[in-house]
Order: sequence, then C-alpha cells, then structure tokens
Amino acid sequence: MNQKTIRLLMPQWQGGNNPNYSFGAELLAWLAPDNDQPLIQVPVQAYDGSPLENENGVNGRKQLIEQLEAAQHIIHAHKPDRIVMFGGDCLVEQAPFAYLNERYNGELGLIWIDAHSDLVGYVGYDNGHTLPLGNLLGEGDEEFAKHVKIPLKPENVFIAGLATPTEQESEEISEAFERLGITTAESDTEMIQRLGIKTAGAEELTRSTQSIKEWIKESGIKHLAIHLDLDVLDPKAFRSLLFANPEGPYTFSPAGSLQIPQLLHLLKELSEETDVVGLGITEHMPWDSINLKNLLGEIPILNN
Amino acid sequence: MNQKTIRLLMPQWQGGNNPNYSFGAELLAWLAPDNDQPLIQVPVQAYDGSPLENENGVNGRKQLIEQLEAAQHIIHAHKPDRIVMFGGDCLVEQAPFAYLNERYNGELGLIWIDAHSDLVGYVGYDNGHTLPLGNLLGEGDEEFAKHVKIPLKPENVFIAGLATPTEQESEEISEAFERLGITTAESDTEMIQRLGIKTAGAEELTRSTQSIKEWIKESGIKHLAIHLDLDVLDPKAFRSLLFANPEGPYTFSPAGSLQIPQLLHLLKELSEETDVVGLGITEHMPWDSINLKNLLGEIPILNN
Repeated sequence: MNQKTIRLLMPQWQGGNNPNYSFGAELLAWLAPDNDQPLIQVPVQAYDGSPLENENGVNGRKQLIEQLEAAQHIIHAHKPDRIVMFGGDCLVEQAPFAYLNERYNGELGLIWIDAHSDLVGYVGYDNGHTLPLGNLLGEGDEEFAKHVKIPLKPENVFIAGLATPTEQESEEISEAFERLGITTAESDTEMIQRLGIKTAGAEELTRSTQSIKEWIKESGIKHLAIHLDLDVLDPKAFRSLLFANPEGPYTFSPAGSLQIPQLLHLLKELSEETDVVGLGITEHMPWDSINLKNLLGEIPILNN
Repeated sequence: MNQKTIRLLMPQWQGGNNPNYSFGAELLAWLAPDNDQPLIQVPVQAYDGSPLENENGVNGRKQLIEQLEAAQHIIHAHKPDRIVMFGGDCLVEQAPFAYLNERYNGELGLIWIDAHSDLVGYVGYDNGHTLPLGNLLGEGDEEFAKHVKIPLKPENVFIAGLATPTEQESEEISEAFERLGITTAESDTEMIQRLGIKTAGAEELTRSTQSIKEWIKESGIKHLAIHLDLDVLDPKAFRSLLFANPEGPYTFSPAGSLQIPQLLHLLKELSEETDVVGLGITEHMPWDSINLKNLLGEIPILNN
C-alpha cells in the first residue's frame, strides 16, 4: 500500500512565548534523516522584537490561530496519509493530529510523550503550549478547540512520561505560581481523572511499557499518532531543553527524567505494535547552537 | 582593497580519535552566517568503524598527513588572502595558518585561544590534536612540522585562555596519566618558557585584555590569525564540548572557564586592533545534536 507521508516544519514560537523555539525547529528538521518525504514550511510570523499581546488569556492568540489555519490549509492541500511535524512549541501538534483523526474516521490513537499533559490553560502564564492536548479533546481553549472538527476520544489517548515533581521542584513551582498569581480552573490531574485518560510516568516506562501495549490492544488502536515533547527527557542527559538553560533553572513546571535509550525503545515498540501515522517533535531548545550561532553572527571576519 | 576570503570545512576526527568531531564541524559550518565566502570541503576519511592505528606515536598519522596535504593543495589552488577554517579537531589549523604565514612573509601573528597550548605530543595518549601549535613553530612532531614551510616566530604567538587545573582536575589528570603511562619529553609549560611565548589565563582575560593589545603593538603584528578551540569556554555555560559529555567527565586535561561574552569581546577587539586574516574554530562536540540525530535516524516513520 502506497502511503503518502509529508514533513511539516513549523517554527512556531508564540505558543511558548520564546523566539528560540523557531531555531530549535529548524535545527531539528536539519538533523532528521534525508528521505523522499517532502518538507513543507508552515508560515510563522517571525519574532520582530516586540512582545506578544495577551489576547483573551493567550499570548499571541491571533498569530497562533492564523498559523494553525495555515497548517490546516497546507495539510488539506496535500491530503497525506501520514504526517511528521517538526516544531516549534507544542501547539504545532493541533493541526496534524486533528487532521489525522478525520483521516482515520475519528478512531486515531494518540500517545502524548511529554513531561506535561498539555490539557489546560493557566491564567497568569497564558502561553498556548499548555493547551494542545486539551484542544484535541474538544476541551482546552474554546477558540482553538473549534478548529478540531472531530475531537479525539479520551480512551484513545495515553499520556506517557509525565513528570513527578521533586520536593524542591514542587516548592519552586508553588512559589512561582503564587508570585505571579498563576491559577487554573481545572488542574491537569483533575481533567485526566474526569476523562479517564490513561497515563504512565517515566519510572514506570523505564521498568515496563506493558500498560501502553495493553492500551493499544484494549482500545483497538489501528492508527497511532505520537507526540514527542523532548522535555520528557532528563535535562542532565539532553540539555537542549527549556529546563537546561545554562543561565538558570526554569521553575514553572517539573523537568522530565526519561533517558534516550528508553525513549527509543518505546518509539520502536509503538511502530511494531500499530501503524504509526503521525509523529510530532516539539520544544527543542538547543542553547549551545543558539549561543554559538549568535557568536558567529558577530565575528567580523565571518560577516564581511 | 579587495580581499579574497575562503571558508574551509574540514571534518577531521582522527586528530582527536573521536568520530564525533566530524559532525561537530558540519554543524558549525551550518551555524555560520551566510555570505559570499565560498565554502570548500576538505576531503577527510570518514570513520568506518575500525580503530585508528598508532603509527610512530600518532594515531592515524597517515590519514592525518594525507588530509593535511589535501588542505594545503586546496588552499594553494585558491591562493586566498584570508581563510576561515571550520574543524574538526585542532590539527585542522596547521594548513591554513602555515599558508597564511607564507602569504604574509613570515610575519603572521597568531593568537591561540584555547584551554590548552597544543605544543607537544604525549606518549601513551598519541592523539595529533595536542600538536598543531608546536608544528606551526617548527617543533611538535617532525613529520608534521616539515609541512610548515616558514615556521611562525614564537614572539608572534600569544596563548589566551589557558586553563589552570583545579585541585580535583590535577588529581584526575595525574591518575589518568599514571594509569595509562602517559608521558611527555618536554611539558607545554617548559616549551612556553623556553620559547618565551606570551600567555594569559581565562581569569586575566576576564579582567583585562591589555596584555594582548600590548603584544600586538610591541610585536608589530599587522596580520593576525585566530585559533579558537571552543573548549576554552566554561563547559557549564557551553556544553557542546568533550568536557561536557553527559555520559561522564573527561579526565585527560583541565576544562576551560571563559564565558561567551568575554570571548566575543576579545574577538571584536582583535578585529579592531589588527587585520584578522585567519580564523579557525575547532573541537565542537554537540552532544545533544549528535544524540538527537542518532535518535531520529532510528525512528521508523522518518526512515521509510
């Protein structure tokens, strides 16, 4: 069977309100193995030095919606069977996975490999990258969720690699939330319970991926999309993450703890167990390459 | 005056006996700002899985000499006024800087920005990347030094950013040297003293670059080449270094401690004080990109 796969490069940064996500996307696409999959760039408004506006609780809402629609148009122009998405912040996942759920008649399975569940908005933080899985389930933010024609079924979603904050992380997060007045109507944990979404933490995954294989079998997943937020990885082992900023720690959410070999093992197993029709990779923040690129950009002999 | 500048990409890894240097070179060249300088690839024998042979005290001597000669041929074919070199291990610097010293009538100035002085060989370590500055001075390794038609004058060389090992580093280095029976006929420090080469450590550079400016004035440096071994940087701030291997510390030499802003300040000052005709950047070891590239290379949907 001849499957049509496209690669999308969506250097979206507004969802994390950090322009470095754009370069992270470009480097990610550059690192991917060459093959005959076309690489299509989704237009994204580049950072122009001015701060994003908070529009009804989401920083840069207008730009994000425009970019979401651009991604939708491109995908519908190509009508692929499979999509690879190189982000960018996590919100890039909405368009491809919503399309794939239509493509596979509302029966798409989705594994969300991420230290965070990306289900709800946080008032006072207001960055769209906390929302994509919520939107895909028809929850999240109303305007974004409206762009999902067929919401995913909660029983077809599995969240893998959820971080358990250490005591120190818990304290730092509480402090940061209190200092900035960050609140949420329903917590991620509450929504997970309400919707009955299955999860497994990094520790469990390292021991066994049995619960994921059972979920695939029991839910009858035929076609699976994989979301991979690189922040599921241990920032001591993989430092190209928001959580490994050499200039100081990130204190708004707990860091991941998965190791690369365990992640690879899981990804390979998923391809053996089911038909992987989508892969999105997000939140690549290559500090060293960013700093080195900036340095090279200022050395006179390289800029004559 | 119309100056002809070429960029060379020399993904040499044999001088550090670590195939990762090749990818580091490629990423480095990709990160450099685009301009109209041609980028010319120097042929380098790719790692084929078999270990290098120790040939008369240098691992991979034959390949290294062949690659040195290839770089020389390419440079002489182009006859540039200025050369940018993207390495690769430190030994890539020999061909461009030896050529530039001929081009500028034996009066080239050379600043060696590096945590290490790269002057002498170490029996039992046997990697060529400890030799390039020695070779350029007509010392180092006899066979390599023979390829330098006009050796640099020691008074025209300045070593900047030399690491002072911490007590723990000193102990680890001594232990590693003793365990592996690593010895040297003359230490770097001894050669620096014998030749009267000026130096400044990272701490001094952070306080003031006065000694470098005085050296340029007193030695009458009109044309300057800059060697930048990225390992001069603090591996806590820039982790794409041998010294920041996430799998474990490197214990054969002390790590650098310079910060990126201080390095940039120095590079800009050098361009103001004199005519920079050469720049070589070496020993880029981007662990995260290497690990991510390897991961992507094994994910089935990206490799169909």
